[in-house]
Amino acid sequence: MDVEKIFRMKGGVGKTSYSKNSSLQKKASDKVKYITLETIEQVYLTAKPKSLGIADLGCSSGPNTLSNIREIVDAIEEISRRTLQPAPEFRVYLNDLPTNDFNAIFQALPDFYGGLKNGRSNQGAPPSIYIAGYPGTFYGRLFPDNCLHFIYSSYSLHWLSKVPQGLYDETCRSINKGSIYISDNSPPEVPKAYSKQFQEDFSLFLHSRSKELVSGGGMVLILLARKGPNHIDRGNSFFWEILYRSLASLVRKGDVEEEKLDSYDVHFYAPSKEELEDLIKKEGSLKLEGVEMFEIEKDVCDGSATSYGTRVAMTVRAIQESMIAHHFGDAIVDDLFDIYGRMVDEEMAKEDIRAVTSVVVLRKL
Amino acid sequence: MDVEKIFRMKGGVGKTSYSKNSSLQKKASDKVKYITLETIEQVYLTAKPKSLGIADLGCSSGPNTLSNIREIVDAIEEISRRTLQPAPEFRVYLNDLPTNDFNAIFQALPDFYGGLKNGRSNQGAPPSIYIAGYPGTFYGRLFPDNCLHFIYSSYSLHWLSKVPQGLYDETCRSINKGSIYISDNSPPEVPKAYSKQFQEDFSLFLHSRSKELVSGGGMVLILLARKGPNHIDRGNSFFWEILYRSLASLVRKGDVEEEKLDSYDVHFYAPSKEELEDLIKKEGSLKLEGVEMFEIEKDVCDGSATSYGTRVAMTVRAIQESMIAHHFGDAIVDDLFDIYGRMVDEEMAKEDIRAVTSVVVLRKL
Repeated sequence: MDVEKIFRMKGGVGKTSYSKNSSLQKKASDKVKYITLETIEQVYLTAKPKSLGIADLGCSSGPNTLSNIREIVDAIEEISRRTLQPAPEFRVYLNDLPTNDFNAIFQALPDFYGGLKNGRSNQGAPPSIYIAGYPGTFYGRLFPDNCLHFIYSSYSLHWLSKVPQGLYDETCRSINKGSIYISDNSPPEVPKAYSKQFQEDFSLFLHSRSKELVSGGGMVLILLARKGPNHIDRGNSFFWEILYRSLASLVRKGDVEEEKLDSYDVHFYAPSKEELEDLIKKEGSLKLEGVEMFEIEKDVCDGSATSYGTRVAMTVRAIQESMIAHHFGDAIVDDLFDIYGRMVDEEMAKEDIRAVTSVVVLRKL
Repeated sequence: MDVEKIFRMKGGVGKTSYSKNSSLQKKASDKVKYITLETIEQVYLTAKPKSLGIADLGCSSGPNTLSNIREIVDAIEEISRRTLQPAPEFRVYLNDLPTNDFNAIFQALPDFYGGLKNGRSNQGAPPSIYIAGYPGTFYGRLFPDNCLHFIYSSYSLHWLSKVPQGLYDETCRSINKGSIYISDNSPPEVPKAYSKQFQEDFSLFLHSRSKELVSGGGMVLILLARKGPNHIDRGNSFFWEILYRSLASLVRKGDVEEEKLDSYDVHFYAPSKEELEDLIKKEGSLKLEGVEMFEIEKDVCDGSATSYGTRVAMTVRAIQESMIAHHFGDAIVDDLFDIYGRMVDEEMAKEDIRAVTSVVVLRKL
């Protein structure tokens, strides 16, 4: 399965789009927004560049994409005013896989620029902002040398470049039957294969970004993670466990072939804090300024009538639909995520399960 | 009518898409390819930059977009080999309005990069190419100062930023009833309004690009034009005349309200060589290296069974459908371009009518 050609957040603005189902990601990135803004402010105050290069890696499409940019621009303009400097020119590079719905982002740009102009009569002309889409995998080079001051990536780096090779035997059959990610049923080769793939991918990511950052440039990486050395935790592997169980119930109903489910594995990995620290140290050109771990609380009262499980199901669907539809066919998708939502509600009634997120702050030496 | 939000070449890869109906544009830009390649080669040999910035303004989507880039990259690599220099890094900026189908271009990128790698065993590693989409109108700034070495624009600059204001009286009614562009029926204010809009737009275009080009940078602009001072020529205004007559025949059939047709005017202008030269001189920071005018011959034998008129109709449809559907509704489009194709065939049987194109080569002083 060629991840680069298939994997994407659900495009458009429909009911099942990522655009309409990314409020959990927004909630989490809002929680750490102060870290993002502090980091870019520090970089800006140290380097004081006339032209500030900012990249959002795995930007997806939807309200989060441009609102992040807006907040960063506002923060830097505010600092410029406070320090009596002219605001810099902003070069903004939006990156995601070529399958991402860039059209939806781009079509929102005239209103975005319009919004920047409005209500600015006291503050003079709006800043110069040049926004570009840079499609491609971030596991490799995306931008020229030394062109970025700040790199931001929210909920993208837990996606591996591919399903790990080590999950398949010589006859190309998955050795991870009974699971789609690391689970209690997985043989020990499975976490090893996942961990190895993450090491390769994350090292390549760091190495590529280090070339693209100017000296002193900063990076804030927000990704799903696990709390300790044990791969099987309730926080992240649990949500894949539920997806496996939902698929298995469709096998029992005769809607999915067992063989199809056996051969499905996700290209996801939740690293531990220690793994992240270790890989950053090995890379050598980036200084780790901090790693924080936090849990996203269950939002019991978001004003909607839909259950928490349904909302989680919609979020997972917007993220996974491209891969699932490619492997199992479109027909099962509605049914699958109905079951998924119900299962999440059942489990959450028994126990409050919270996904764990890590925030990594780095500076180029 | 907000051109920036409505106007676009027909996206996707369907039968009526621009992607499938841009062979006439390709034929014409192929005819002047030697000028494009010579100009960028000269710029490269003079500046010898390590990082070469190239912009395609009005790139649209379809096979022409990336094949242009490929040819430029191949030409520069060949020169580097001949002159025993390392090939530069290529920064490629693709621009069109935010409504353009950038997704289609981006999804073709993995194969484009794959194609660059293949068959290169003798020539070492493929060049570093960073391709970005920069959505926005080129009547204004798109890129930071001094970041481009070469700007290319093919069949875009005859599109005005808007339908000229001067076409409407105090009650907002078009003074150009009986035409949708400059015609024999137009009062003298009509060519004046069109010409004024072109002057504003083209001057702003030149001024913006001049800021973005490095000193010594080059520009090749290919656009529809007219041969002499007379606005009404068979080469370009004729095709709008036919579109008007096709719409008028739908008015007679009762499918289009007369008032709707009266209020429709296109945002197009075919300048003369003298107008182009004059505006370039006025701008002052760009040296005109040459203007050539040429006609696109009727391709009698392209191997397809469809008539020439039908092919012209498909080309004009891919370009105009967004505006026509917005103004008159989707329902008339099929019928309209059937009539259009037949009318072109009828006229071409009487007389060989050829669109006139100008190629302008500029260097930043």
